[in-house]
Amino acid sequence: MERVRRVLAVPEDYTVLFLQGGASLQFYMTALNILREGEKADYLVTGGWAQKALKEAARVGDASSIWGDSDSGFKSVPSDGDYSVRDDAVYLHYTSNNTLYGTQYHHLPDSAGKPRILDASSDIAGVPLDVGAHEIIYAGAQKNLGPSGVTLVILSPWAMSRVGENLPTMLDYNVHASKGSLFNTPNTFGVFVLDQVFKWLEENGGLEGSIARNRAKANLLYGELDRSDFWVPHAEMESRSGMNVTWRLANQDLEAVFLQEAEAAGLGGLKGHRSVGGIRASLYNGCPLESVVALVAFMQDFEIRNT
Amino acid sequence: MERVRRVLAVPEDYTVLFLQGGASLQFYMTALNILREGEKADYLVTGGWAQKALKEAARVGDASSIWGDSDSGFKSVPSDGDYSVRDDAVYLHYTSNNTLYGTQYHHLPDSAGKPRILDASSDIAGVPLDVGAHEIIYAGAQKNLGPSGVTLVILSPWAMSRVGENLPTMLDYNVHASKGSLFNTPNTFGVFVLDQVFKWLEENGGLEGSIARNRAKANLLYGELDRSDFWVPHAEMESRSGMNVTWRLANQDLEAVFLQEAEAAGLGGLKGHRSVGGIRASLYNGCPLESVVALVAFMQDFEIRNT
Repeated sequence: MERVRRVLAVPEDYTVLFLQGGASLQFYMTALNILREGEKADYLVTGGWAQKALKEAARVGDASSIWGDSDSGFKSVPSDGDYSVRDDAVYLHYTSNNTLYGTQYHHLPDSAGKPRILDASSDIAGVPLDVGAHEIIYAGAQKNLGPSGVTLVILSPWAMSRVGENLPTMLDYNVHASKGSLFNTPNTFGVFVLDQVFKWLEENGGLEGSIARNRAKANLLYGELDRSDFWVPHAEMESRSGMNVTWRLANQDLEAVFLQEAEAAGLGGLKGHRSVGGIRASLYNGCPLESVVALVAFMQDFEIRNT
Repeated sequence: MERVRRVLAVPEDYTVLFLQGGASLQFYMTALNILREGEKADYLVTGGWAQKALKEAARVGDASSIWGDSDSGFKSVPSDGDYSVRDDAVYLHYTSNNTLYGTQYHHLPDSAGKPRILDASSDIAGVPLDVGAHEIIYAGAQKNLGPSGVTLVILSPWAMSRVGENLPTMLDYNVHASKGSLFNTPNTFGVFVLDQVFKWLEENGGLEGSIARNRAKANLLYGELDRSDFWVPHAEMESRSGMNVTWRLANQDLEAVFLQEAEAAGLGGLKGHRSVGGIRASLYNGCPLESVVALVAFMQDFEIRNT
């Protein structure tokens, strides 16, 4: 837990929890703990995960989308000024990286002074993060932090002070905080591995090292996508994700062949999510630069053989 | 999943799920999925875990204790006839083994024809179990089945048919069943190890082999407890647990020395829960007979040196 605090520069008065149930349970738990019936919460809906978070919060209070981009295929995240936070919203929720569409915020979204709640599941410990500018940050561990089955939750004093009364015991942040995440019964193996990942991060340049490695990977791959009209990147330039790179082939008929030959060349898991189609390469912390080098070499060879 | 079905002889039309959050989350989830506001559910309260199960269910409906033994120190489980299930109860909930007090049912409790819901966390796959006589069985994996962070849930067709509408997604048995326990995101490592444990069980005599091993361990230890007045067993004879053996020393002043010397002799984790005090030896599936042999030899030596 101390390693998490050091690497992510968590303010001393913030609470750090290791819970279960994935980010999906947090969609509901954050609202259940923080929001009261009838109270408003505003959501920036930048993809499928944000939609799910909104759906669960709407079971608890008046949770609404104040920005959404589903009509244009979730190719971007909003800029400040693209949305208005309601005057009486209790918080603003956003999803820092959108795995399905390959978009990501590269700025701290304006919240009009309201508390920010962040689902950082797919880019935590891989990008710059100002923990103190948020009241709750939650992240499933299975992308950048370790094995599935652990969710990191970081809560500000304000968040802890908002936790409601008489919540179901296992859904009550106060219960877990009062027991130091040991309430019956934590995923001990998952927490152990998560701690080892943070140890590795600390020994390899900390958060800055991780950011540098991820930028190098993303720059290499986007450089290839921008080099040739053979590729058609999905996300708009300023919203491009450093974690999930999504693109189509100009000739979409070639996509199946691309995926098949890539797989045969040892480059697996590149099929895009069905909501976007095409190709998706995920560059999470566990992915080494060498993988991206190999992918780009394969792409260049594939283009030559198919033009 | 097929191994779980085979070893536990789960009826074909039952659903098997691997969830997260421990049995403690199931205390709430079972009621949330099965019970409607105002509906009755009856609980046999045989210890701290049953009390917790009742507390969570009472958030959902009219859940009541129809039998409790806290006044006499939870030394036994009820016999049929010791309690009356309410005519309009939706189900009867019981806890097959009580870890804190060292008691256990050795019969299928009479439910007056009502559906049985069972928390089998601390004796599943270690004792005889008629799955088909229950509508829901849940069990945290961390005692008899594998690592913490996985909960096995077995649901009858009746239970699945009772699942309510519009539940929070991660708390909805239908969601998890429809995705074969793969809904975002399972504890993959924990499920893998659980499967390996069931593989081991299958290769070592199945459930019958496990029952035989556990009986041998329990008989050895209870034999020692009954041999001498130096020891004072906590549970009543007919309610003795084969999983958690609890006792005091006739001279309670010696208990601290006993624990200290046991620890030094490599026999750790024997301190009784604070609600009972004294000594507790847990004989879960992972505990080999050799450990109990060593414990009994230590006990006999300790008695000689202290009388």
